[in-house]
Amino acid sequence: MRYQLYYWPSIPGRGELIRLALEEAGADYEDVGRLPASQGGGAAAIRRALSGELGGLRPLAPPVLRAGELVLSQTAAILHWLGPRLQLAPDDERGRIEAHALQLTVADFWAEIHDTHHPVASGLYYDDQKAEAQRCAGHFVRERLPKFLGYFEDVLAARGTGFAAGERFSYVDLSLFQTVAGLDYAFPRAMTGMAARIPRLRALHDEVTARPRVAAYLGSPRRLPFNQDGIFRHYPELDGEGR
Amino acid sequence: MRYQLYYWPSIPGRGELIRLALEEAGADYEDVGRLPASQGGGAAAIRRALSGELGGLRPLAPPVLRAGELVLSQTAAILHWLGPRLQLAPDDERGRIEAHALQLTVADFWAEIHDTHHPVASGLYYDDQKAEAQRCAGHFVRERLPKFLGYFEDVLAARGTGFAAGERFSYVDLSLFQTVAGLDYAFPRAMTGMAARIPRLRALHDEVTARPRVAAYLGSPRRLPFNQDGIFRHYPELDGEGR
Repeated sequence: MRYQLYYWPSIPGRGELIRLALEEAGADYEDVGRLPASQGGGAAAIRRALSGELGGLRPLAPPVLRAGELVLSQTAAILHWLGPRLQLAPDDERGRIEAHALQLTVADFWAEIHDTHHPVASGLYYDDQKAEAQRCAGHFVRERLPKFLGYFEDVLAARGTGFAAGERFSYVDLSLFQTVAGLDYAFPRAMTGMAARIPRLRALHDEVTARPRVAAYLGSPRRLPFNQDGIFRHYPELDGEGR
Repeated sequence: MRYQLYYWPSIPGRGELIRLALEEAGADYEDVGRLPASQGGGAAAIRRALSGELGGLRPLAPPVLRAGELVLSQTAAILHWLGPRLQLAPDDERGRIEAHALQLTVADFWAEIHDTHHPVASGLYYDDQKAEAQRCAGHFVRERLPKFLGYFEDVLAARGTGFAAGERFSYVDLSLFQTVAGLDYAFPRAMTGMAARIPRLRALHDEVTARPRVAAYLGSPRRLPFNQDGIFRHYPELDGEGR
């Protein structure tokens, strides 16, 4: 199956969680947003997908994945469907249910990470909500960052396999890698402060980085760097010391 | 199958979306948090579920649903699993995928609704973030409320069946009912301003209210009213006129 991924071409964003799964699996896919406009790509292609041109349910936001006749949206739902097909999910029902719940918890965490720089409105510039952002990020670094990272660390400790969803490496591990990488970019001071408390998450991050297909992907031009338009942004004034 | 639902006893919250599905289906369930403490209920029961005592993956937050040997968390994931078992989901794979994506879009909307009164930190009181909340809610009422409600209205228009997920009444319709009911409570002025733009959503809300099992449930003490501790809160100063 040849997949078509639709996501904004300028940021890694949530689309990167789909891209990482496709890359790790060596899947055949087309990153439509990153094709030249002359080949039907660019941001215009994403806007067309959001207008409903792919058929089926019109999605409200990207990423959107086309898999033959199926059009999927919502990152965690895409991965829940795609994971088993890419051999990146547990084999049993209970394992798949747990992987999906973990992925949705990653999604909740990312929403809060985004809100640290956009607490008032996603439609306003950062500079127009900088004071609110500093207050929000202060609480985030003291309370929410330790809560979520501590939770994922506990899950890894309880598994005892090094993998979040159980025996087998899964798309959840790829998403946790991207989460840690994004936080390293956005909150380097706070992450240094967290280091002693998340050894298993750090080990998972490092292991993912070294997986052959991921390593090749990370070194390729297909990998989009974190930047100041994405979910993970580095504003030094938001990067507290943690607690 | 007898289900056990674990959710905070004092607010409808996200747990209400599971409760509505169980009630509409006439399912056999125990609302553990609302049992007396002497019978193992109350908030302490929820805290025990969050400590991992039910087995399997420790959930980060309620609602949690126990279904025999399975322990599910994350509202949309619970409904994705439960919907087909309660005859409240489409029959085909494409329909179920679309219902799940819609439910996750409801979840995104609810997160933004919550943030209108808690834009800085969920761990602070409203009074400690009232200024930020007014600014956030102003943007919400002007931009996000019409965007999300307009999207769901469009979906209903495209279906042409009166139901969000296609031919059959589903858990998504119950969640949209609760969304409209919650917004009526929290943002009565803004919802009056939206009335002409969401006739199909209003009709769906009214139809759900009149379904025999839902009507019996809404009139029973099992139904928790909206209140000032939940996701939907009525602060007149946050309720703009819309645009």
